[in-house]
Amino acid sequence: MPTACVLIIGNEILSGRTQDINLNYIAKRLVDLGIDLMEARVVVDDESAIVRAVNECRAAYNYVFTTGGIGPTHDDITAASVAKAFGVKNVLNPRAVALLQSAYKDPSALNEARLRMAHTPEGASLIDNPVSKAPGFQIGNVFVMAGVPKIMQAMFDGLVDRLVGGPPIRSRTLSAYLAEGDLAKPLAQLQGRYPDVAMGSYPFYRMRRFGASIVLRGRDQARIDAAAAELAAAMRALGGEPIEDEPVADE
Amino acid sequence: MPTACVLIIGNEILSGRTQDINLNYIAKRLVDLGIDLMEARVVVDDESAIVRAVNECRAAYNYVFTTGGIGPTHDDITAASVAKAFGVKNVLNPRAVALLQSAYKDPSALNEARLRMAHTPEGASLIDNPVSKAPGFQIGNVFVMAGVPKIMQAMFDGLVDRLVGGPPIRSRTLSAYLAEGDLAKPLAQLQGRYPDVAMGSYPFYRMRRFGASIVLRGRDQARIDAAAAELAAAMRALGGEPIEDEPVADE
Repeated sequence: MPTACVLIIGNEILSGRTQDINLNYIAKRLVDLGIDLMEARVVVDDESAIVRAVNECRAAYNYVFTTGGIGPTHDDITAASVAKAFGVKNVLNPRAVALLQSAYKDPSALNEARLRMAHTPEGASLIDNPVSKAPGFQIGNVFVMAGVPKIMQAMFDGLVDRLVGGPPIRSRTLSAYLAEGDLAKPLAQLQGRYPDVAMGSYPFYRMRRFGASIVLRGRDQARIDAAAAELAAAMRALGGEPIEDEPVADE
Repeated sequence: MPTACVLIIGNEILSGRTQDINLNYIAKRLVDLGIDLMEARVVVDDESAIVRAVNECRAAYNYVFTTGGIGPTHDDITAASVAKAFGVKNVLNPRAVALLQSAYKDPSALNEARLRMAHTPEGASLIDNPVSKAPGFQIGNVFVMAGVPKIMQAMFDGLVDRLVGGPPIRSRTLSAYLAEGDLAKPLAQLQGRYPDVAMGSYPFYRMRRFGASIVLRGRDQARIDAAAAELAAAMRALGGEPIEDEPVADE
């Protein structure tokens, strides 16, 4: 099954200034595309850190999605760093120049700083930016996108045609007001009988009662449903009433 | 200066089920503690993935903080994986047993599954859990905490005495309704004159106007203030009025 890694480039995430929400968006989309997201990394705005992460991740996974660092200021070093990771030059891309020209009424606005956004690694293809024109790009299995969530989402929506996914990843969640520690043994036994259905247990606290949500994930809906039926029976045997999906935790 | 890495262990983050908020909490705390957070990773609930990440990160940074995977169910494999990373046994910890015993009125509640939460790598010291008793632990420079944010935060608050930080990291943010592309050149020149003050530029869109927030970070308040004064002058020269801090983006 195809695998992926998300690489978040941004001092602002690691300093706590910004709460990242791009990973969650990409993660959900990859589920539908049938691509297993295996890892995510957040790295500082530093060339050697980016080069190392890009090269490790593109070797380990089928797809790498980066966010951040493709603007016009000196701290936007993603394109140059990805070029270095691939051992190619970071060059002015004529198509990117044309896109940026279309964004500014005044031609003199396309100054040296903004032309930074028209540089891509040699051999890269562009990723459309319907929000603010300045494009992302793809080189090899690495997809470079903006950090601003609205732009990143639009870029991702425009690149999915280039991805080859597997069967979509399905999941069901059963919740009950049962303690995880009581459910653990039958759950482990169930996992043993269904190695093809990944089972995760997540505690919650709601209305002053503890409970657990069990997430069943896999690619075969019939197997998930069969596991869910057995899980529901196990929950009832412990005195819990299984409910589909999960209550929102109030903490 | 001391450095750190956050290691988030959790299929639920990579599947998009859960929006992580632990990284942001730890990031903000490390700023005050004067510890540079250099990287964060999210890895799947898989022993070899956890072992590899723990060993890479503990070698590269002064401190590693992990979240998630220390509950009573079969998918909670953090303690066993960290033990393997350190090449030691994952053993029943008498102090952890006593803590768990104090949490349950009925002694029979401390079943085999819950005793999983009393296992720690040989040589580990405990991290207090004032919320629900089941402790985290420290081994070497690796601090293992729960994934539930409320518990993770309480654990982190209890372990900070063990960390040796540098001078606190200071920052100031100046914002103006100026386009990043216009501010980029003077900003790059300013960065050149203040290599000890990290300057990040973050665009925003508010009240239908574009602007940029410039974050100045460093350890010397006087240098940050001097850079801020020059930045304010540069913003005014471009026709913008610098404002302290940043407007909340409305997108």
